[in-house]
Amino acid sequence: MSNKTLRIVPLGGLGEIGKNMMSIEYGNNILIVDTGIMFPENDMLGIDYIIPDFQYLMDKRDRIRGIIITHGHEDHTGAIAHVYEELHAPIYATKLTIGLLEVKLKRAGLRDKAELITVEAGDQVKIGPFTVDFCHVSHSIPDCVALGIDTPGGFIVHTGDYKFDHTPVDNWPTDYAKLSEFAGRGVLALLADSTNADKPGWTPSERVIDPGFDKVFSEAKGRILVASFASLVSRMQQVANAAMNHNRKMAFVGYSMRENAKMARKLGYLDIPDDVVVPLDQALQMKPKKVVLMCTGSQGEPSSIMGRLASGRNRQFDLLPGDTIVLSSHPIPGNEETVSRTINNLFRRGANVVYDPIAPVHVSGHASQEEMKLMMHLVKPKYMIPVHGELRHLKQHAQLAQVVGIPAENISVIENGQVIEFEDGKMSLGERVPGGYVFVDGDRVGEVGPAVLREREALSDAGVVFVNMLVNQHSHKLVRTPELVTHGFVYEPASEEFVAGMCVEVERLAHESDGNGDLQAKVEKGLKSYIYKETKSRPLIFAVVNEL
Amino acid sequence: MSNKTLRIVPLGGLGEIGKNMMSIEYGNNILIVDTGIMFPENDMLGIDYIIPDFQYLMDKRDRIRGIIITHGHEDHTGAIAHVYEELHAPIYATKLTIGLLEVKLKRAGLRDKAELITVEAGDQVKIGPFTVDFCHVSHSIPDCVALGIDTPGGFIVHTGDYKFDHTPVDNWPTDYAKLSEFAGRGVLALLADSTNADKPGWTPSERVIDPGFDKVFSEAKGRILVASFASLVSRMQQVANAAMNHNRKMAFVGYSMRENAKMARKLGYLDIPDDVVVPLDQALQMKPKKVVLMCTGSQGEPSSIMGRLASGRNRQFDLLPGDTIVLSSHPIPGNEETVSRTINNLFRRGANVVYDPIAPVHVSGHASQEEMKLMMHLVKPKYMIPVHGELRHLKQHAQLAQVVGIPAENISVIENGQVIEFEDGKMSLGERVPGGYVFVDGDRVGEVGPAVLREREALSDAGVVFVNMLVNQHSHKLVRTPELVTHGFVYEPASEEFVAGMCVEVERLAHESDGNGDLQAKVEKGLKSYIYKETKSRPLIFAVVNEL
Repeated sequence: MSNKTLRIVPLGGLGEIGKNMMSIEYGNNILIVDTGIMFPENDMLGIDYIIPDFQYLMDKRDRIRGIIITHGHEDHTGAIAHVYEELHAPIYATKLTIGLLEVKLKRAGLRDKAELITVEAGDQVKIGPFTVDFCHVSHSIPDCVALGIDTPGGFIVHTGDYKFDHTPVDNWPTDYAKLSEFAGRGVLALLADSTNADKPGWTPSERVIDPGFDKVFSEAKGRILVASFASLVSRMQQVANAAMNHNRKMAFVGYSMRENAKMARKLGYLDIPDDVVVPLDQALQMKPKKVVLMCTGSQGEPSSIMGRLASGRNRQFDLLPGDTIVLSSHPIPGNEETVSRTINNLFRRGANVVYDPIAPVHVSGHASQEEMKLMMHLVKPKYMIPVHGELRHLKQHAQLAQVVGIPAENISVIENGQVIEFEDGKMSLGERVPGGYVFVDGDRVGEVGPAVLREREALSDAGVVFVNMLVNQHSHKLVRTPELVTHGFVYEPASEEFVAGMCVEVERLAHESDGNGDLQAKVEKGLKSYIYKETKSRPLIFAVVNEL
Repeated sequence: MSNKTLRIVPLGGLGEIGKNMMSIEYGNNILIVDTGIMFPENDMLGIDYIIPDFQYLMDKRDRIRGIIITHGHEDHTGAIAHVYEELHAPIYATKLTIGLLEVKLKRAGLRDKAELITVEAGDQVKIGPFTVDFCHVSHSIPDCVALGIDTPGGFIVHTGDYKFDHTPVDNWPTDYAKLSEFAGRGVLALLADSTNADKPGWTPSERVIDPGFDKVFSEAKGRILVASFASLVSRMQQVANAAMNHNRKMAFVGYSMRENAKMARKLGYLDIPDDVVVPLDQALQMKPKKVVLMCTGSQGEPSSIMGRLASGRNRQFDLLPGDTIVLSSHPIPGNEETVSRTINNLFRRGANVVYDPIAPVHVSGHASQEEMKLMMHLVKPKYMIPVHGELRHLKQHAQLAQVVGIPAENISVIENGQVIEFEDGKMSLGERVPGGYVFVDGDRVGEVGPAVLREREALSDAGVVFVNMLVNQHSHKLVRTPELVTHGFVYEPASEEFVAGMCVEVERLAHESDGNGDLQAKVEKGLKSYIYKETKSRPLIFAVVNEL
């Protein structure tokens, strides 16, 4: 690698959904794009969320010239505080994105330390040796940008998240001219969003939701509760529009929903008259037909408002007969079951629940196959690197690239940690750097890893049995009946006989060993066989031997 | 309730996916329809599968006149051995279904005890006071039936699983004439499959898969591995047809796939010449371009062949460069994440993976909305009871029933355990009987319940800490350093300092208590606070105090 090598180092988002983060490097200069989080999969037991592994950057702190955040969604912003605690550099983003980042940095006590630089779509900014053009793209939150990054090693384009929505909620379509201008400058490589690479056709405009909402609002006889993501700012505007058309007041429910709405209104990205928005406690006093509540919990998270309403555990208010609930989102992959269960429970508690595909109340914010082809034709890259997607999406995006004429050898399907190098305008694979998961579990960041998760999985499979034995220090014989405690294995009130049987077996094993050998190991092994024979289950067994 | 009441008692399948089972009763006579299993949801930790709760029938054994199984899929047959161990009655089913039941009963050592009665579609059979007409319906396995059940309390129709496939694989479409004949006899109530009630339009014919397979088989340069369910007999035929068209031999891989194929061929439901089928070891010796392997594991189950291939743990054979894998199934709800991960891992290991929506290699076996409307128009029921679906599907099916003109008050959306009664041709809600989940965990049936699952969830969330203390029996002071064992909480090799800190805290707590009060409770509570303060995690804590 020479000093003239342009390097692309994907730290997140390639081969998985979420925690998008990338390092773009030339000489001794590093530009970071996005700092997202990822939601844990079902078997990542006890994990709160996942951040990118950026240890690779830890000894290169002084080379980092800037951090660019393409838009305000969690999978691009969520790790900003974790990253900023370690890596200080000016943060560049558009106005709304900066506003949403401020909310996060404030919570982490980092607001005053961070250098936040607001840019506008259309701006060209010099960051070290990089000249970055910010190009407006439409998505499901306002003020998203794609990036044209000119470097001494070549010009690369990063799409961020995008769809080609011709009628976006904020009436600000993608800047096609800028993308064409990029093409005119000669694009060495395109890094493009692959989320929907297996979806044929075009993603419908966000606008298709308006008639869906209109129908729901016309038919609803009581309150309307719309659940969505707290960062889906465009959706807030659409709900507000429907509320105004149908003479309802609107309340934002939940901390992040309220804070984000406040910030978006303050910055002018949400156009809702003051008399339309009411505080929750006021909304709860009004006639049901006069209000719409906008809440979080569209993923059925048990601790969210929607999750609590579904299980009857919400403190401030409960469902009313006649409530209509609109789930204005799709399940994040892995959440399908939780979302289904939430829908069923809301029905069970008497609400009418409206969700896609029952009614058009959500569309994806990401480009489908035909849009991906258009992006490639607009930008005309020499090389193509699919980003932002599971491996199967990256593979499918690569197929599409071939369909539009990019030679197979000019397409790199890579995953996190696989460095790509460009030298004299030629692409090659570079080294591998760490690019895995960093689990956040409570306050612990990166301390809980695969070994601990395997232990949790074993515990979750059949529980645990503790055996406490007291033996004579000379004879090594039991001096009293062993004590057994189980957890997650048997339901003790109904299993006294079985627990007594285990106890007898421990005594038998102790008697058999007769003071010889390792009693702890013998009991753990012997009891394991006994339990498996009786139940075909394998709880973990911990025995302790205390000498008297 | 008089002796002339017709009762419908749903024990499974209403409000959930799977474990279909229903009791139909008149006077002292009971007819059971289906005995299925359900797959555990992601938070049913350690559970193998779920069977219906049929305790309600346990004191009514002598009234059971028969058990009818509508077709050979697991969610209708899987609990047959559990049911038959407790409730003895003749089992009625069509030839293929009987064959597949025999495989199950044999494994459970019940084959010789069970009275299996083979019926044919078109047959009319008297079972106690019930006269049952078996009506052929198309689905994704041959030999499925709907039931016309004439009782002294009225005539009811149960659809079983169905789709209106005009070009089914076995060329045997649904018996529309019989359904119309049912209508002519006057149908009191229709119990109809709701699985796809939120899918608009018509479900495509199974036949649409043929061109999908043809394309895959034309393009594949190496082996082809098709993954599907072991009971999807129609799919086996389609793979065999493609194999013959493309000069490949076919091997069935995995016990249940092999046994079911053997049974279906023996009974004439699979038409595959002997020279097309080869044993696996022979297939593995052949040129890759000459074979197709039909395996289980389309749900990504880690212990299945596909799951083992994806993680590189399959013993008999591994993936080869150039392998094409076809996932000919959709994820069962809740399995989406596992299936995605399996696809990604298969790609990662070099295979080309083909799946819906990338290519049309699977269609649903269940009716969509327009077919549901057709079923209601054909059968012309007075009352309508949606069955077989989550609550949201039942609700949606009820909406469709209203659209085709069934009055809202004649539609009952009920869940498992809610009895429906008909007296003088009038429907009303009856009592509630148990209808919940019976978990099967290893050998234990119904012993592991919600309490144990809650314990497993707590263990899986943050693990466990075990504290072993030895105190002087007089002074109650510690006589040695407490012993701490953790599991699923911290990674001990990297956390020596933290574990030592916990130990010091236990000593401090013991010292503070100074022989007064309940040391065990004090340590459990105090250590919990300490750990939460340090980590924001809440492992379970078990302390034992041994007196010396």
